Amino acid sequence: MTPPVGNPLLAALAEALPPEALGTADVELALHRYDAAPFSEAGRPAVVVRPETVEQVRHVLRVARALGVPVVPQGARTGLAGGANAVDGCVVLSMVRMNRILEIDRANRLVRCEPGVITADLAAAVAGEGLCYPPDPASWETCTIGGNIATGAGGLCCVKYGVTADYVLGLTVVLADGEVLRVGRDTVKGVAGYDLTRLFVGSEGTLGVIVEATLALRPPRPPELALLASFASARDAGAAAGAIIREGHVPSALELMDRATTEAVAALGHPLLAGAGGATLIVASDAPDAAARVRAMAELCREAKALSVAVAEDDERCRQVLDARRMVMPALGAVAKGLPGAMTAFVEDVAVPRDRLADLVERVEEIAGEYDLYIATVGHAGDGNLHPTVLFDRADRSAVRRAREAYDAIMAAGLELGGTITGEHGVGVLKREWLARELPPRGLRLQRDIKRLLDPDGLLNPGKVLA
Amino acid sequence: MTPPVGNPLLAALAEALPPEALGTADVELALHRYDAAPFSEAGRPAVVVRPETVEQVRHVLRVARALGVPVVPQGARTGLAGGANAVDGCVVLSMVRMNRILEIDRANRLVRCEPGVITADLAAAVAGEGLCYPPDPASWETCTIGGNIATGAGGLCCVKYGVTADYVLGLTVVLADGEVLRVGRDTVKGVAGYDLTRLFVGSEGTLGVIVEATLALRPPRPPELALLASFASARDAGAAAGAIIREGHVPSALELMDRATTEAVAALGHPLLAGAGGATLIVASDAPDAAARVRAMAELCREAKALSVAVAEDDERCRQVLDARRMVMPALGAVAKGLPGAMTAFVEDVAVPRDRLADLVERVEEIAGEYDLYIATVGHAGDGNLHPTVLFDRADRSAVRRAREAYDAIMAAGLELGGTITGEHGVGVLKREWLARELPPRGLRLQRDIKRLLDPDGLLNPGKVLA
Repeated sequence: MTPPVGNPLLAALAEALPPEALGTADVELALHRYDAAPFSEAGRPAVVVRPETVEQVRHVLRVARALGVPVVPQGARTGLAGGANAVDGCVVLSMVRMNRILEIDRANRLVRCEPGVITADLAAAVAGEGLCYPPDPASWETCTIGGNIATGAGGLCCVKYGVTADYVLGLTVVLADGEVLRVGRDTVKGVAGYDLTRLFVGSEGTLGVIVEATLALRPPRPPELALLASFASARDAGAAAGAIIREGHVPSALELMDRATTEAVAALGHPLLAGAGGATLIVASDAPDAAARVRAMAELCREAKALSVAVAEDDERCRQVLDARRMVMPALGAVAKGLPGAMTAFVEDVAVPRDRLADLVERVEEIAGEYDLYIATVGHAGDGNLHPTVLFDRADRSAVRRAREAYDAIMAAGLELGGTITGEHGVGVLKREWLARELPPRGLRLQRDIKRLLDPDGLLNPGKVLA
Repeated sequence: MTPPVGNPLLAALAEALPPEALGTADVELALHRYDAAPFSEAGRPAVVVRPETVEQVRHVLRVARALGVPVVPQGARTGLAGGANAVDGCVVLSMVRMNRILEIDRANRLVRCEPGVITADLAAAVAGEGLCYPPDPASWETCTIGGNIATGAGGLCCVKYGVTADYVLGLTVVLADGEVLRVGRDTVKGVAGYDLTRLFVGSEGTLGVIVEATLALRPPRPPELALLASFASARDAGAAAGAIIREGHVPSALELMDRATTEAVAALGHPLLAGAGGATLIVASDAPDAAARVRAMAELCREAKALSVAVAEDDERCRQVLDARRMVMPALGAVAKGLPGAMTAFVEDVAVPRDRLADLVERVEEIAGEYDLYIATVGHAGDGNLHPTVLFDRADRSAVRRAREAYDAIMAAGLELGGTITGEHGVGVLKREWLARELPPRGLRLQRDIKRLLDPDGLLNPGKVLA
């Protein structure tokens, strides 16, 4: 690293941080500019700091405040809204070395951990104690639990098990002034004072830096059974998903793939999708009566004009069915490779009331036509949460412009259908103008007031969430 | 009512409220001074206003602000912390006439309603549409959904189904300045901006007045099976409850009754408690494999040295088992009648980590001895949430003093055991000094800052939650 001599920020940081915690090499700074969102603006950090203790985090925030330097907390940078993008001259506060699991408490079904723990590592560790941490964002093998909390991450199984926010009992946060604040509790229930825990969940590092979390756990999930149904159209698949919900089923996954996604996964060789139709539904159950549930849900698919229904009643067939969903991103990657140009995938995230799902899928198909773009939509049908993925040539200025316009059109469609601009990815820099369209003016003002209350100097992840 | 002539508050209110919405009769004012908490200070309201529209609520808040008059929102006044108690000269804003169910949406499994709807009415209405609103606070047949939301109410089934807060998707709130704010959403998922919905849930009317709620619903609950186990001590019963949780069961009720409660319910004639021991556990399951679950949990009770275990595998026996829990308050009422003096019941509410439950029960038994009081404890063992009920003669000054001291000792014990001063009843006026002991100074400061942000003049339910 560059010696801190002559740079007051580095010199001040070095007073309480070891040299190996401070990164200033060009490649390191470049590497920490962006998360996984395309289109998103990012500045160049002054330094990447990797603290290992709460005291070190406090020191960073005190120094930043004293010098008026912005601080951008980062986890694994798998976010899809630019929420972890650097701003010019900032301290990137990379939490990845604070990755200890502090306690797994079987009697109280909870875990205490630091924010840098990889979600899959956390899940594996608690599984080793006979417990389960259900939230499963797509990036769960690389993303951090701190990032999950900061973005309010979701996943496939939330249709039954809820989102990250539902598991956060308590947090320790370092505030903008370097003070440590403990919010929430270690008990299952508690209503002592205003709920500050939920205020920090999903706040994307703009209100404080999460340095520890207490998370609720569940008993292990029973084995899943699943079905895959092909439909002529997303409308039929949406009707089947609606019937499943209306009939009172609580599937552990209820995923919809549109025509483009179905074709891409079929092209990658998934046996159940050969010759499939215009949409696919993948439904799983881990209920104690999963076999009966899956059969009943298969019948509802048939009643909703499914072209074919494959029911997987053993582990192997079940894995095959669920693989169709897991193959979506690799399949779109293969499609991108086959297209001319420097293709980039842009994963969108909108949520609508469950019964408007098919409307949104159809609207996205129209948008693909209007903007002459390849868009493949997959989504959590049980939650009304869709992810249209736009593939575009980032070297083609017209394609980039059209992709951005299509992105805006998709969000507008989500709002028109009574939905929200983000179901689980967050606002970041990408959607802050859209947040102002979704929220009423008074709500937006209150959001700003809360930001000002907790970060009066505006140094915590500036420009994220709120414009 | 008294004509408003000469009273600027009444005159201003009458400008946009019909005469029948304004109550000033002495009996009416007296009736609206207190909720169901004993020991709690209360003032005398200037007027009881019963709005029927959002516009009327806005008018009340605008008038109150212009004249500097405090506003105390009330539901059914079943609260147990004095959170709805009047303050001198206030407007009591009784929301009971805003009691319409606006929409039950089967496709999206949600309901929109006004705050004055009785919880049981809401549950019945959605059940009529084949859906379920699970939260079941003890007062559910009389309390209002607005009060449930404002206090963050719990209940018996939250060990499996969660608390009121978990069902609130969105709220419409009238702020202190009379502006209407819509927070949250109609979608299952959503992370657009800071979570302001949870900020209002449990805020006890101190941040705004809830005028509409969008609540998530579930499929109907399957029929329950249950068991009742008698133990020599609360420690043994607590060990059985711990084993049930540790073995990965998710019961739909897991209730513990201490010696005094067990004896009281036995004395009222419950057949399964005749000759029972020092503690009782009531466990229910509504899982699809409920019969197997209940048998397995019964075996865990036997392994934990249960003196007897009654497994109810049909509806009638199940009702009998669950009746033991429902009989607790009538049984304590009967005990109170049998004691000399003007007996009053004081229901406490503390929550501790699940594995400290037996410690808390034992500590409460010690406290009963130390203060020479009758205390019967019943609680949600699966949540670590206990309700010690203190019976004392309100005409006996020494007994009143001892009851208050015992109350403080119980809260201190809860905090010592790593718990919280309130699991589901709220802070109100009763526990605001204790809130300051539970929260760290910085947390308390932030709570006050948020209060000031939303209610700069301090007119919304003043003196509640925060001292």
